Amino acid sequence: MSRSDRFLNACRGEPVDTTPVWIMRQAGRYLPEYRAVRARHSFLDVCHQPELACEVTLQPIDRLGVDAAILFSDIMIPLEGMGCRIAFDPGPVFAEPVRTAADVDRLRPAEPEADVPFVLDAVRLIRRELGGRVPLIGFSGAPFTLAAYMVEGKGSRSFENLKRMMYAAPDVYRALMDKVTETVIRYLNAQAAAGAQVLQVFDTWGGILSPADYAAYVLPYSRRVIAGLDRSVPVIHFVKGCGLLLDLVRQAGGDVLGIDWHIDLADAIRQVGGAFSVQGNLDPTVLLGPESLVRERAAEIVAKGRAARGHVFNLGHGILPMVPPENAEALVDAVHEAGRR
Amino acid sequence: MSRSDRFLNACRGEPVDTTPVWIMRQAGRYLPEYRAVRARHSFLDVCHQPELACEVTLQPIDRLGVDAAILFSDIMIPLEGMGCRIAFDPGPVFAEPVRTAADVDRLRPAEPEADVPFVLDAVRLIRRELGGRVPLIGFSGAPFTLAAYMVEGKGSRSFENLKRMMYAAPDVYRALMDKVTETVIRYLNAQAAAGAQVLQVFDTWGGILSPADYAAYVLPYSRRVIAGLDRSVPVIHFVKGCGLLLDLVRQAGGDVLGIDWHIDLADAIRQVGGAFSVQGNLDPTVLLGPESLVRERAAEIVAKGRAARGHVFNLGHGILPMVPPENAEALVDAVHEAGRR
Repeated sequence: MSRSDRFLNACRGEPVDTTPVWIMRQAGRYLPEYRAVRARHSFLDVCHQPELACEVTLQPIDRLGVDAAILFSDIMIPLEGMGCRIAFDPGPVFAEPVRTAADVDRLRPAEPEADVPFVLDAVRLIRRELGGRVPLIGFSGAPFTLAAYMVEGKGSRSFENLKRMMYAAPDVYRALMDKVTETVIRYLNAQAAAGAQVLQVFDTWGGILSPADYAAYVLPYSRRVIAGLDRSVPVIHFVKGCGLLLDLVRQAGGDVLGIDWHIDLADAIRQVGGAFSVQGNLDPTVLLGPESLVRERAAEIVAKGRAARGHVFNLGHGILPMVPPENAEALVDAVHEAGRR
Repeated sequence: MSRSDRFLNACRGEPVDTTPVWIMRQAGRYLPEYRAVRARHSFLDVCHQPELACEVTLQPIDRLGVDAAILFSDIMIPLEGMGCRIAFDPGPVFAEPVRTAADVDRLRPAEPEADVPFVLDAVRLIRRELGGRVPLIGFSGAPFTLAAYMVEGKGSRSFENLKRMMYAAPDVYRALMDKVTETVIRYLNAQAAAGAQVLQVFDTWGGILSPADYAAYVLPYSRRVIAGLDRSVPVIHFVKGCGLLLDLVRQAGGDVLGIDWHIDLADAIRQVGGAFSVQGNLDPTVLLGPESLVRERAAEIVAKGRAARGHVFNLGHGILPMVPPENAEALVDAVHEAGRR
């Protein structure tokens, strides 16, 4: 078995030679070679120019020895195709937050090949440059997370505008979610058609709701997205803050459930059952500790992961900018060593 | 049974005439009469001047009809007694974050009567002005939450400085936690001696860790605090993000466990068992919806709360500044109506 098979096999619950690993935001500010690119180009330029997106996507692949590449982009990008104007400062800031029925009416589901062709060009270019070394992951924000940013206009602590819309204007909320959901389906399928071999749906904000509200306001749309995707491509569904929602999140479908560090991986696997692989779940801040701790914690999680149908090692959220790259390298090495079959 | 008994009885698991209710941050920016005081005085002035603290503490009591008063103060105040210089902008900002062993050495456990006498004067004054209408809650930040602010120097998304200290300099972390824990014990006992009838320990950031890290780095100190408190005064222990930690949080002791909205209250009660009352757990943003929704959600939670040894209704976190006061009034009324025995 080659390095290129591990990740796809784990996603599907098939045999692996060792536990595969990739790192959310593995192309990012903790790498000097990424910072060198960003010294010359803005974040949005790197998202918008396929050659730059390809360059930074490939940077961590051989340096870290990870088992998958993930398209360098931002979860907000499909919303540019809906007519939203977004700046990064450094988090996303929307020129016109979506608050009313009229605001929703003005939005149109994106046509990815026409509206965001640079993403699909980047996917094709990265596949060619990877030359089969490791599979390529495409991704999108989940409808709820995208709607949260659209309504708030930026990140938020309590999401009061979004939740006011949910509670006080549910028809407006549902009209917005319908359009975003259609966009996400088209956007992910276009990435698969361009060559993405796995698709990850990021629901960064799915965990801000009570379980009853998640079931009513999020799950139907996430389920619709996953049901609408090309069935030949494994789907990873990552809901940050999923620990108390697993019985609901599994109802959305998919092949792999992303798990953050707030739940013990063994508990999560017990709840998820045999129909899913799992991805996770090291606390990203452990990479700020000594290498011995990184290796110890990695081995603990790898051992727990053996109880799952399949386990893709990852952090429970994105790698932090201040992580020493040597610790990321040690993490990948430790996972491969501890995971050997 | 009178209004003044409900809350204490529910804390102890004794009979009540209806479900008692108070609201975290019930004295706050959503009330015009609070904003009027703040137009003339800074936030710290209101904390530091007993007459002002008393005035805003009492504002919501009769207007809302809540069953407890809570001292107006900030969870950071005991740290002023340790020698920290703290500004509010609007969140706390420490002039000198605590990062090294030398920084920890410079701190001393506070002597509340000498260092923060204004807090104890406020407690005495409020008790007198309440005249027995409702009991008074005193409070403190939990050691972990206080240490988190001290190390980060302000709020944080990933708490990288705190966690780096935990993982890379555990001796420094434990020395800091020892001093903060001693301060919290003295501070809460001084409030009880001055007249506080219930004590709440707020662990705003307890939920940022994995269960294993919570057990290793937080629980021993929270347990030490609660074991060190005057046993005649009921203790409420509120860990935000506690839903996946309940089996650990209960090991810290106390009489009432605060529950946020990320877990269904019925699930939380099942896990907590018969040795604790519970407090919670409405999503604060529900108060941005229509009054009909506020009443419906309140009644659902009150019904679930009947399975607990005792139930104190509250939000799952502080009331938001943009909540219409009428919705807070409707909430209290709905709880009392739905909770009638």
